[in-house]
Amino acid sequence: MKFTIQPIGTIHSPFSTKDQMPIQSIRSTAHGKVEVFKEFEAGLDGIEGFSHLILIYIFHKSEGYQLRVKPFLDDHEHGLFTTRYPYRPNPIGLSIVELISREGNNLTVKGVDVLENTPLLDIKPYMPDFDIRHNFRAGWYETRSKP
Amino acid sequence: MKFTIQPIGTIHSPFSTKDQMPIQSIRSTAHGKVEVFKEFEAGLDGIEGFSHLILIYIFHKSEGYQLRVKPFLDDHEHGLFTTRYPYRPNPIGLSIVELISREGNNLTVKGVDVLENTPLLDIKPYMPDFDIRHNFRAGWYETRSKP
Repeated sequence: MKFTIQPIGTIHSPFSTKDQMPIQSIRSTAHGKVEVFKEFEAGLDGIEGFSHLILIYIFHKSEGYQLRVKPFLDDHEHGLFTTRYPYRPNPIGLSIVELISREGNNLTVKGVDVLENTPLLDIKPYMPDFDIRHNFRAGWYETRSKP
Repeated sequence: MKFTIQPIGTIHSPFSTKDQMPIQSIRSTAHGKVEVFKEFEAGLDGIEGFSHLILIYIFHKSEGYQLRVKPFLDDHEHGLFTTRYPYRPNPIGLSIVELISREGNNLTVKGVDVLENTPLLDIKPYMPDFDIRHNFRAGWYETRSKP
């Protein structure tokens, strides 16, 4: 069973190489532009009312994967699915960004942590009632070796 | 530009038809099973340390889409990308579930809001430092017509 997916837009970022990249959007103050292709513009109606968006995209520079990896924030190996590492069986990424402004089919966002020209698959509104969890445990991240 | 994606597992849920479905995982107390295919099992190493997981999957019963939709929680139409509506250009869904236990390549989770046999694309750890945002605005959701 295979599925075909097709970008609905492009994420523009100031980062053109992997070594320039911030680790996770919450650690990034970089501004970027989410260009939604014109044919999907009507799907953005009312988006100005939301402060944060979930971007779903392709890690387009990712190739192959390993099931145990050393994440950027730790010196030990962990199961791939306990990390946000970009080399994955399905190289799909997820970032929460702050929406600064909208001009037609272009969104200016803050907190970009993707490469320039990242293919956008979907935008979902960040909804605190759905997306915030309390009383959590975060495994290796709580005893990681890097800040 | 097209991408091919292939499931890494299957989500089992008590819901076999759409009208049985809870709206959003945070409103669901249903238990389900995330079956990760054996070949990917090593990627789960250490996942027991995490209380919550982000599941990324295909809305496999979704067909077509409209760019303006009436979400389940409101009587007014809104841009598709301001909603979590399942009929999308790329029918990719995202749910945050609570991890109850792991038995090999099977995860028992709580808060399932997907249909039985949903194709799983990825698992990412829920990391409060990355995934919790404060000072948010949630557009139409804040003045919606349904509880």
